Amino acid sequence: MAHQRVLTAQNDDFPQWYQDVVAKAELADNGPVRGTMVIRPYGYAIWERIQSEIDQRIKVAGARNAYFPLFIPQSYLAREAQHVEGFSPELAVVTYAGGEELREPVVVRPTSETVIGEFMAKWIQSYRDLPLLLNQWANVVRWELRPRLFLRSSEFLWQEGHTAHASAHDAAAYARRIHLEVYRDFLVNVLGVPVLEGIKSPRERFAGAINSLTCEGMMRDGKALQMSTSHELGDNFARAFDIRFQDESGESVWCHTTSWGASTRLVGGLIMAHGDDDGLVLPPRLAPVQVVVVAVRDEAPVVEACERIASSLREVGLRVEVDRGRASLGRRITEWELKGVPVRVEVGPRDLADGVVTVARRDGGRDTVAPDQLAAQLPAVLETIQSELLERATERRDATTVETSSLDEAVEAAQSGFARLPWSLVGEDGERRLNEQAVSVRCLQRPDATTPESADETDLVCVVARAY
Amino acid sequence: MAHQRVLTAQNDDFPQWYQDVVAKAELADNGPVRGTMVIRPYGYAIWERIQSEIDQRIKVAGARNAYFPLFIPQSYLAREAQHVEGFSPELAVVTYAGGEELREPVVVRPTSETVIGEFMAKWIQSYRDLPLLLNQWANVVRWELRPRLFLRSSEFLWQEGHTAHASAHDAAAYARRIHLEVYRDFLVNVLGVPVLEGIKSPRERFAGAINSLTCEGMMRDGKALQMSTSHELGDNFARAFDIRFQDESGESVWCHTTSWGASTRLVGGLIMAHGDDDGLVLPPRLAPVQVVVVAVRDEAPVVEACERIASSLREVGLRVEVDRGRASLGRRITEWELKGVPVRVEVGPRDLADGVVTVARRDGGRDTVAPDQLAAQLPAVLETIQSELLERATERRDATTVETSSLDEAVEAAQSGFARLPWSLVGEDGERRLNEQAVSVRCLQRPDATTPESADETDLVCVVARAY
Repeated sequence: MAHQRVLTAQNDDFPQWYQDVVAKAELADNGPVRGTMVIRPYGYAIWERIQSEIDQRIKVAGARNAYFPLFIPQSYLAREAQHVEGFSPELAVVTYAGGEELREPVVVRPTSETVIGEFMAKWIQSYRDLPLLLNQWANVVRWELRPRLFLRSSEFLWQEGHTAHASAHDAAAYARRIHLEVYRDFLVNVLGVPVLEGIKSPRERFAGAINSLTCEGMMRDGKALQMSTSHELGDNFARAFDIRFQDESGESVWCHTTSWGASTRLVGGLIMAHGDDDGLVLPPRLAPVQVVVVAVRDEAPVVEACERIASSLREVGLRVEVDRGRASLGRRITEWELKGVPVRVEVGPRDLADGVVTVARRDGGRDTVAPDQLAAQLPAVLETIQSELLERATERRDATTVETSSLDEAVEAAQSGFARLPWSLVGEDGERRLNEQAVSVRCLQRPDATTPESADETDLVCVVARAY
Repeated sequence: MAHQRVLTAQNDDFPQWYQDVVAKAELADNGPVRGTMVIRPYGYAIWERIQSEIDQRIKVAGARNAYFPLFIPQSYLAREAQHVEGFSPELAVVTYAGGEELREPVVVRPTSETVIGEFMAKWIQSYRDLPLLLNQWANVVRWELRPRLFLRSSEFLWQEGHTAHASAHDAAAYARRIHLEVYRDFLVNVLGVPVLEGIKSPRERFAGAINSLTCEGMMRDGKALQMSTSHELGDNFARAFDIRFQDESGESVWCHTTSWGASTRLVGGLIMAHGDDDGLVLPPRLAPVQVVVVAVRDEAPVVEACERIASSLREVGLRVEVDRGRASLGRRITEWELKGVPVRVEVGPRDLADGVVTVARRDGGRDTVAPDQLAAQLPAVLETIQSELLERATERRDATTVETSSLDEAVEAAQSGFARLPWSLVGEDGERRLNEQAVSVRCLQRPDATTPESADETDLVCVVARAY
């Protein structure tokens, strides 16, 4: 389509393109305190859709939502050695409250394992109380030196699941269930991002975990983005917080816990996985507005026709907006493309006289359709867009995933996508050398399948990339 | 029903009854940092239902959700003189972050007028940008010296709406629309609380507002609870944050802003407005579980019958849980009554043989019904319970609302409910004297109607009570 360019082209300067999209599509702004973020209504509507889809899946997996405090006593973090070491540099600390200096400073939660551990210990007595499956939607704070809207902000929104189980086996199985049925399913089937999944290397693991499962997405600039993580925490937090239960034989046993989260970072991933030089490209299953019905002119019969069409589409369950349009048509089209709305129905006076309207897809292609056919046809059109979006993203990812057999080759290949090589060629030492080249280990996979099991296995395949 | 008593009786010790309900119904726990609160899954499920009902109404009123940062530069608060004075004693301050002392300490938001004002100023240029209607769901912090779960916690969850308008008239009309169509409608028609509405006295107004609308509920101990407030902020914040627009003639004009909120405090109000000596009594329209289907014995045919009944009820849109029951029946019934579930369907082997099940209402009364009639009958039963709940609460409130004609009479009457008297008999001086007796002005009303207009009017009626 011929229309004015409002964004930097991706190939010219991808980071600038990203910033342009976030600003011009009115997704977010920088907050006044360094690294914080204002999520504007359209950005927040996208986040609400993400929340709703993830929340449904979490509930199906049996976890229940709860809410734990923002403020955590500093001493709690210190109870798990790796945990405190991992988070200390990023903490924000309240030292003064209610008009006086606090006796014990409190930390603004960077994550809630510790405070939730404290309450699990209170609530769990017997094997009958297990599994205890909790989730919370909350804000967390990790002070960022190089903040970037959605991708890396000092405060972000997320869900964090925390569960306690009777055995390491149960904990591992549940972390894996969440990884597959909540995250992978959502990311692939709603967000349209063909994630690579695997386990984290020991160096990249969550602070305090014995195993971390990850879903890694490929962005359009060839860099990877970690989109979700699910951690087996072993009995580390159980020991630190005394989370024990009486088993069926009456013996007191440590629980095994898990934690798992996904954040507003996903909005950044969504932008960079599908967006193009015209702006956002939203997968229909996620889009807050799936169809915009555009009045070519702001004239009563046209606007009325738009409203009738919108009603008929809402009746079949679509999320629809009407643009009765005071600005020029060209400017409005640019705007809707920028916002990534999957389908635009353009309604003009001449078309109406001819008994047709134009259906324009955000991913390309225009068609004329009789208005009374829209409600029957558009749901299928949206599903087609959804699956083609995933197909194209999968092709892009596969085209830039390279099998390599040395660290040097891997670093080279990682300039434009994922590089795979035997983990035996990397190891902790190789991982440090990769990191020096700004390449990191995204995940380890079993060679025969994408299904991760445990970190102990030999002949794992290592997937590396540059990453956000 | 004859069953064991697990709560302190309301008449013996109402505050202890409240604490017992919160603990025994597993609604919330005290957090480790003074005044903070852990909202447990059942308490959070109630809050999620409140959120969903309020959020729907906010969206119908045209406001869009967004998210603003937790951290606010200390200097922002100082820009509006009354605002900073009102909130300073309650602030929590971060002085240390990312491993070093901050150059400017940041405040944990006690409310977001200031930071949102800053962004309104950026986003609003012309009259075409107005009204700007925003809302956010967030946690806020106000350090509490006498914390009480849900009612008064150092951190609480709420929604805060913030809007900017072209004129004082538009702002007042919108604040009033929210007050009536969001809050009053929700409180009366979903929560079943017959609120008194009016405006706040100057002394009780929000810090920085020129007029505050309030919905006041009456609790079962004769004390009032402020359940929502909607503020006209005049151009106070607009001047402090430079929120201006060009009007149609090209002149630069200050906006008029509003803010309005309701919080997790509503869970406390719900408990105290309807609860009885057996526990919570939840209005069906709000209840996370509207019907529990209880298997009298844990036997396959009984449990299967329960599951069939539950499915048939879910099909007609009810929120249903099955209790297949491993504990004794008596203990389980006590538990469901404690949790306030409106309707319990008890399914036993003998009843099944007779082709009936028992329907027990939380508010009293039992009936036997054929299982295949439940889906047809229960929706109406739930609606009856809902309206009777409101009726009874209204009767209680009216029975304890007394017309008085002096401060002394009002103080006396306020020991057990609302006292009404002419505002001309009170005034700022009388208000201070009432406060010394632990009685406060809940709202001012016009004598001829409950519809509040402005604080300037003479012959207002003053409604006073003891209050949470």
